[in-house]
Amino acid sequence: MSPPENTIGFDADDTLWHNETIFERVHERYRDLLARYHDAATVDRTLLDTERRNLELYGYGVKGFTLSAIETAIQLTDGRIGADEIQRIIGLGREMLAHPVELLEGVRETLEALGARHRLIVITKGDLRDQERKLAKSGLAGRFHAVEIVSEKNEQSYAAILRRHGIAPDSFFMVGNSLKSDILPVLALGGAGAHVPYPLTWELERIDGLPRAEGRFFPLEHIRAVPAAIEAWRAARQRA
Amino acid sequence: MSPPENTIGFDADDTLWHNETIFERVHERYRDLLARYHDAATVDRTLLDTERRNLELYGYGVKGFTLSAIETAIQLTDGRIGADEIQRIIGLGREMLAHPVELLEGVRETLEALGARHRLIVITKGDLRDQERKLAKSGLAGRFHAVEIVSEKNEQSYAAILRRHGIAPDSFFMVGNSLKSDILPVLALGGAGAHVPYPLTWELERIDGLPRAEGRFFPLEHIRAVPAAIEAWRAARQRA
Repeated sequence: MSPPENTIGFDADDTLWHNETIFERVHERYRDLLARYHDAATVDRTLLDTERRNLELYGYGVKGFTLSAIETAIQLTDGRIGADEIQRIIGLGREMLAHPVELLEGVRETLEALGARHRLIVITKGDLRDQERKLAKSGLAGRFHAVEIVSEKNEQSYAAILRRHGIAPDSFFMVGNSLKSDILPVLALGGAGAHVPYPLTWELERIDGLPRAEGRFFPLEHIRAVPAAIEAWRAARQRA
Repeated sequence: MSPPENTIGFDADDTLWHNETIFERVHERYRDLLARYHDAATVDRTLLDTERRNLELYGYGVKGFTLSAIETAIQLTDGRIGADEIQRIIGLGREMLAHPVELLEGVRETLEALGARHRLIVITKGDLRDQERKLAKSGLAGRFHAVEIVSEKNEQSYAAILRRHGIAPDSFFMVGNSLKSDILPVLALGGAGAHVPYPLTWELERIDGLPRAEGRFFPLEHIRAVPAAIEAWRAARQRA
């Protein structure tokens, strides 16, 4: 086999496996916990405000979420929340960390098809140990040439990854469910990207509008469409 | 300048900058917070038990410590702890994350001396964003060829780092304050190491006895002694 000509990067949470669904179930139980103090909309809004305020300090991931959820519960109850309820919030966080990894439909076959021709890497953000654990549980670790866990997905962090692996930006194609974290920074560097939305998007990942990058941006409905998008991208590059 | 022949790895917390001292001050305030419920020894022992039990799930770092400290406080007070006190524990964690970085004495000069001849890298564990932030605050980031933040420091993770950077184990020299995390796994791989103890060692990093590895292990009292140890190691290799 000739050496792979392109590198395909995959986001992990909500691209390879379910994540936001698990968070959403936890949010529901969190709302229930605080239901005798506040309505669901107030709980959601206040928690999101806390998460946004703490993001710079805590970064992404379950542990920061749990700390923000405890802080929000204390705030929303004017300190009347009981220690047993706080213990239950800690328990919600632990459940998320220990949760089984459920692959999205079509992931395994798509990686198998792409792995024969391209170098595959994972680029994800969140808690270091949690992301490593999920990759191990997924059974997909052997499919990837490298796993990059970063504290933020932006032009700078993608550029560092490409440099470290000797990847030319125009030979890099990223697949992910977040336009903000997975697609926009890669397009800005001259790479390509396929956006495969997940049914749920965390508020802090949302952006308005679709990017414009002729021949380099592919809004898809399913990960199974990624190989065809990569072929279209390669064909466009050869014509150029 | 000829290319550097050796790579020198540096641990970060308590090797380049103070860390355990900051944790210790937080521990004192944590004990004070729980003093009306339990004596200091009980608080310390129970917190350590919680941290040990949670280590696999949470990994290292301030966020996991904070969650363990909240859990321990609830346990030690049979749930009588107030929300305001839990908020203060969250505050202790936040203070640690926002704490200024204080370099250890001699670090800057030692890195400057070594950087002229060797490739320097940082290998550290803990929360991803927290470690990156500390490196940025330290003003030392430009001194290092690479920064590796890992979830655990063991033979496997060191081997992966050496492989990724194309470093032969016998050309690798690690400097750190933890025999368990910084020295033993590197010696086992055939590398060399200098142990520079910090006045305080976290209980979960302690081991008994000193390793034996003729010409490859250097117990030092100060980081300023590292360049001479590296020269001794190089001389021993040339004789071999």
